[in-house]
Amino acid sequence: MEAYTIFRDLAILVIAAKFFGLVARKCKAPQVVGEIVAGLLIGPGVLGLVDQSQFITQMAEIGVVLLMFSAGLGTNLKELKKTGPAALLIACCGVFIPLVLGAIFYGCYYGFSPFGSMGFYKGVFIGTIMTATSVSITVSALKEMGKLQTHVGQTILSAAIIDDIIGIMVLTFVIGLKDPEMKPLIVVVQTFLFFVFSLVFGFISYKIFKKVDKRYPHTQRIPIAGLAYCFALSYIAEHYFGIADITGAYFAGIILCSIKDSDYIAEKMDINSYMLFGPIFFASIGLKTDLDDMTLPLLGFSIGFVLVALLAKIIGCGLAAKICKFNFWDSLKIGVGMMTRGEVALIVSQKGLSAGLIEPIYFTSVILLIIVSSVATPIIMKLLFHKSEQLAK
Amino acid sequence: MEAYTIFRDLAILVIAAKFFGLVARKCKAPQVVGEIVAGLLIGPGVLGLVDQSQFITQMAEIGVVLLMFSAGLGTNLKELKKTGPAALLIACCGVFIPLVLGAIFYGCYYGFSPFGSMGFYKGVFIGTIMTATSVSITVSALKEMGKLQTHVGQTILSAAIIDDIIGIMVLTFVIGLKDPEMKPLIVVVQTFLFFVFSLVFGFISYKIFKKVDKRYPHTQRIPIAGLAYCFALSYIAEHYFGIADITGAYFAGIILCSIKDSDYIAEKMDINSYMLFGPIFFASIGLKTDLDDMTLPLLGFSIGFVLVALLAKIIGCGLAAKICKFNFWDSLKIGVGMMTRGEVALIVSQKGLSAGLIEPIYFTSVILLIIVSSVATPIIMKLLFHKSEQLAK
Repeated sequence: MEAYTIFRDLAILVIAAKFFGLVARKCKAPQVVGEIVAGLLIGPGVLGLVDQSQFITQMAEIGVVLLMFSAGLGTNLKELKKTGPAALLIACCGVFIPLVLGAIFYGCYYGFSPFGSMGFYKGVFIGTIMTATSVSITVSALKEMGKLQTHVGQTILSAAIIDDIIGIMVLTFVIGLKDPEMKPLIVVVQTFLFFVFSLVFGFISYKIFKKVDKRYPHTQRIPIAGLAYCFALSYIAEHYFGIADITGAYFAGIILCSIKDSDYIAEKMDINSYMLFGPIFFASIGLKTDLDDMTLPLLGFSIGFVLVALLAKIIGCGLAAKICKFNFWDSLKIGVGMMTRGEVALIVSQKGLSAGLIEPIYFTSVILLIIVSSVATPIIMKLLFHKSEQLAK
Repeated sequence: MEAYTIFRDLAILVIAAKFFGLVARKCKAPQVVGEIVAGLLIGPGVLGLVDQSQFITQMAEIGVVLLMFSAGLGTNLKELKKTGPAALLIACCGVFIPLVLGAIFYGCYYGFSPFGSMGFYKGVFIGTIMTATSVSITVSALKEMGKLQTHVGQTILSAAIIDDIIGIMVLTFVIGLKDPEMKPLIVVVQTFLFFVFSLVFGFISYKIFKKVDKRYPHTQRIPIAGLAYCFALSYIAEHYFGIADITGAYFAGIILCSIKDSDYIAEKMDINSYMLFGPIFFASIGLKTDLDDMTLPLLGFSIGFVLVALLAKIIGCGLAAKICKFNFWDSLKIGVGMMTRGEVALIVSQKGLSAGLIEPIYFTSVILLIIVSSVATPIIMKLLFHKSEQLAK
């Protein structure tokens, strides 16, 4: 492939994502929905204009990392401390209820298998796929509505980060159940070490950034160094600690959110994001979908899978929020905000595939879950915020 | 390769390029020199921290396209009309003098061969490699010094664009001499058609952009549509007309340079450029270099090759500028500004390799030429502008 052929894909992706984003906004739906639909339309499933190439995947990965870095930069640390305990409970319920309900759903559809059999592990794994919340679409929708800094927004964000960590631990446990070489203890230790590392390394780099920022305020070097720092922490998190790169990027944002120029960094990141990487990330979710492999029994399974996955998060996280004294509407918002799935669900599925726990055909169900949750969440969130604003009047 | 590993390379590239860029500026040298040196140091030749991966190549390609688009956006059309005839003469001399001197140099070094023999074609091809000016580094240096909008700056820019087109025609002619399947006439027709296409399509899209810009001034959609337009024209130029993608991007910039928000588009592009794509492009030139393959005779050839290539451009373009009534110092600036070689020289070499006209070992000479010219041009340009400012006082 010649280097210049990427420009064809980029031109189509950027213009289609922007166009359908605007159309979505005209229809009072959030822009990201339009961008995902754009990917679906130009992708191999419908028009076939753009394929899911390795380059697009890598650009999309940069897009999601920038999005999480930007979310981290906008974090209100005082608010995070306030939301911490509630977020922990919401995340725990948001992991374990989908895990259990997913396994039960698999049993109901294909018949229950005895403990320790292959069918049992497969069922548990279907539940595991349902655990990982992918908060980036919710973040983007909340940001668009200007609700990211609210108590509900911050709680969802904190809960999703904790959810991600617990979800990855569950994944390693489940795979470890089958494979005697994986030691669940190692995962716990790695996660703990990443926290210690983030605290120590984060504190040192925060001090350095603060000093440089004070000496050279509002210069190019601050956002550039911030960007490199975000990339570095994304890599370190995944490579050395087995934590998702987006968690590293989010931590990088949190570490830098208290320096004076954090808004200045965020502003430059946002321009990079909305011009190129953001639209590519959201459109690439649509691109991944090929509806040709769909058979009737699989379609039935997929519909059930999507419904269970969505309801399990709403029930699990919503109930936990209600226990933490959120009112009914805010609990519902948190449940709905936590129900989006994204690239983490695909990564989990890929790991399960290589461990022999699922067949490739189930990817279609996962992709359907990602699309339905990505399209539905922002719309429902918008309606819920609208509703509770009406009630407040 | 996992998707997250790109973040390691990106973090190292961005931070190293920025750091050495600042060091270069402290040493009164232009920033791009530091960025190239950064690539050389972290690349396989020295520290081996980052390899020249396909992803980095693609990001660098986006970088050079954005740079040329931005240069096009900054074009002063009145100035281009004024510089047109001079630029044409400078470009012609800048192609044919290096072509002839390069072939003579090859003959002097390896012995002259009779017309039509393989040795003859090889000599002519060494000359062909020397023809293509790569103006992006000069543009970047001129921009940094705030001299891009001067008469000298605009003349270099116009001449380099014409030079690129003539250079590609020469390449096709030379390859056509050996291969009876390539028709030189087709190249001439394609180039002509691209001009016609740019005029017609450019006029229509200019009208559309102007209308949209008037209706929605200073909105996100203007720079995003501009970016997609730049990518589209880059692809169309290379895919349908065989013209380098950077020429398409430059034309896209020229087409949009007269709309009201052209500065607004350029500003957003520049943020994308300086944050990520620009440093990667310049560092990737350094990355390409592996000094291990160097033998003594090849070193001798390479040094001669570099000297002839640089002097031929200075003499050819400088004399042509003098004929066009530029003063001595300005003619020298134009000659030096035209002597940079870049990715086009590598593309030409690659085409020669696949046509059996050169051996892969000569790539080292071409890379040496790119590095020496990229490092020397901005430094000499800065000295020359400084000198002529002193003389003016």
